[in-house]
Amino acid sequence: MDIYAKRLANVQELMLQENIDYLVLAPTTNMFYLTGLKTVADERLQVAILPARGPLTLVLPEMYRETAKKIRVSHQLLTWADNQNPVDLVRSAVTDRGGRAAIDDRMWAGHLLQIMQVFNGFQFVAAQKVMSRARVCKDEIELGLLAQSGELADAVMKEAMQEIRVGMTEKQLAFFIENKVKALGGDDISFKPIVASGPNGALPHHCPGDRKFEQGDFIVVDFGALLQGYCSDITRTFCLGKAGQESKKIYLAVKEANEAGFKAVSNGIACQDVDKAARGAINRAGYGDYFIHRTGHGIGLDYHEDPYLVEGNSAPLLPGMVFSVEPGIYLAGRMGVRIEDIVALTVDGPRRFNNFPRELIEV
Amino acid sequence: MDIYAKRLANVQELMLQENIDYLVLAPTTNMFYLTGLKTVADERLQVAILPARGPLTLVLPEMYRETAKKIRVSHQLLTWADNQNPVDLVRSAVTDRGGRAAIDDRMWAGHLLQIMQVFNGFQFVAAQKVMSRARVCKDEIELGLLAQSGELADAVMKEAMQEIRVGMTEKQLAFFIENKVKALGGDDISFKPIVASGPNGALPHHCPGDRKFEQGDFIVVDFGALLQGYCSDITRTFCLGKAGQESKKIYLAVKEANEAGFKAVSNGIACQDVDKAARGAINRAGYGDYFIHRTGHGIGLDYHEDPYLVEGNSAPLLPGMVFSVEPGIYLAGRMGVRIEDIVALTVDGPRRFNNFPRELIEV
Repeated sequence: MDIYAKRLANVQELMLQENIDYLVLAPTTNMFYLTGLKTVADERLQVAILPARGPLTLVLPEMYRETAKKIRVSHQLLTWADNQNPVDLVRSAVTDRGGRAAIDDRMWAGHLLQIMQVFNGFQFVAAQKVMSRARVCKDEIELGLLAQSGELADAVMKEAMQEIRVGMTEKQLAFFIENKVKALGGDDISFKPIVASGPNGALPHHCPGDRKFEQGDFIVVDFGALLQGYCSDITRTFCLGKAGQESKKIYLAVKEANEAGFKAVSNGIACQDVDKAARGAINRAGYGDYFIHRTGHGIGLDYHEDPYLVEGNSAPLLPGMVFSVEPGIYLAGRMGVRIEDIVALTVDGPRRFNNFPRELIEV
Repeated sequence: MDIYAKRLANVQELMLQENIDYLVLAPTTNMFYLTGLKTVADERLQVAILPARGPLTLVLPEMYRETAKKIRVSHQLLTWADNQNPVDLVRSAVTDRGGRAAIDDRMWAGHLLQIMQVFNGFQFVAAQKVMSRARVCKDEIELGLLAQSGELADAVMKEAMQEIRVGMTEKQLAFFIENKVKALGGDDISFKPIVASGPNGALPHHCPGDRKFEQGDFIVVDFGALLQGYCSDITRTFCLGKAGQESKKIYLAVKEANEAGFKAVSNGIACQDVDKAARGAINRAGYGDYFIHRTGHGIGLDYHEDPYLVEGNSAPLLPGMVFSVEPGIYLAGRMGVRIEDIVALTVDGPRRFNNFPRELIEV
């Protein structure tokens, strides 16, 4: 059976279990997962409509007619020209008068508002409900690609580390990383690289700027590659020159938290308990107030997806799940440290997809 | 008056005119336009809530607390930790029990579904209604950045052209372009470059692949730069070697359509009439059925925004508007040609922001 046909059948089965009548997807990784179709999400309405029973309908701009011919899975294709209203086409694919419609979480709100009229009388729920259940445990091929994507990120991290020198800017290193990801075979980066030096390190999602690296800086380097659609995501923190006593203590606390998180990963453990394990190490070092985010997120076709390793998430980890373990300590105005690996839970236990050294490296 | 304070006041005035009680923005170019804040849009809820009268509220993840300190415009900041529910914070910023809420067009649907409960009893409309009115006519600083972004794209196009040779792949040229945009001073690309060679040229939004350029190929090259938030967007089509008779005829038809579109641009003309002018040239050449998209789109902080030059859009062009003129002819399975410039309507008439030659170049 074709992989996409299999995935569609599985999702329809999950829809019946979740009492969902229609799944309405945008050109996101969800559409890619179910059809293999990859288009550019923009203001032109593109939707895939899957009833719980019955065939898939794709509503696409005319300009994607040829591209859509590559879709192997059985579907009805409706195309619209730029001077037409696509909402009428969506309407023709929806025969029921009410029920539950599951909406792609990353559909543009403008598009959702446009098609809501078609689903007048429906209850709207997040497509996540079914798509996450379908996607959260990766198959062998997916695990292979995620591992390969992780290896690539490790190799790029090594080269990035060797580039770091006093006077280089954050942007320059980010640019180097983007190039290197592609030069070493990545199809793209999985998200804009974070290079946060010195005091900028205290901003977990810092956008690389023109700050020049200075002697003594801690430099947080966080990026990932995209390989046949599958993401990697790694963070290491380097010290430019000799690290001070307190900085070393902070680094070690994060390293221990990373290790504690990894070791906690096991079949059936609650997501929040991995968070608790990593957080415990940082609490014990006295920096609990400065670990200001969750311990990790799932990864796959999206660089952030289920499962989230966060307090309040009591869902169990299961074999095939892949996620980050990325504790950090952030001292506002001073510095930050984060150490992140992607970890897969296999039937033989946890396995790291990133193996770049986690020891403090003074470059 | 601070630029952001001025923009906020203007938008609130527009909200009153459009009977909108709350503007609800996601971390998109809308939020950037009104606050200068640039964050990464992801699964963590980030919203800006602006009542028609009263102060701006920002609901952001705890990890953005430091970043938000850079916002100069007056606002209330509410942050939430990863183990908290941000919807309660949104609720605290909404005091009315009903009315009209304008939703950022690019907010994730999953986030909209989350906050809809807060706006129970409200009517939802697209934020576009006000944001487009605020943003569609660019001020002098914006025009300057868009012109500069266009010049940068021209320079990159020249270098890209010189790289083209038999055996190079689409991906390789796309990679070269991405690098060159940044090497020549761009902050980023404005969208993934399109490099569509030979038969792939018939796909207007072709995703660059491993196809190698062959002698006689027409190669569509479409990309843009991002400069301080402002986008450029240019397309040229090159011939690798000598062009055949029919290909030349097609190329000339597109070139004439580009020229006709540009010449039609004038103060007060309907958007659709520029489309009609460009389309007319292609119709006269006998290829009307193969020009399968609108003539153009606005550009600014987004690479696609109002105004759209498309049949059915009778809105007038006004000074300060900036948009693409990009006719094309696409022969399925054979080839495509597109020639695109960014054009600004100034008080002195139309002005092109791209000036790379439009003649057929046989590389």
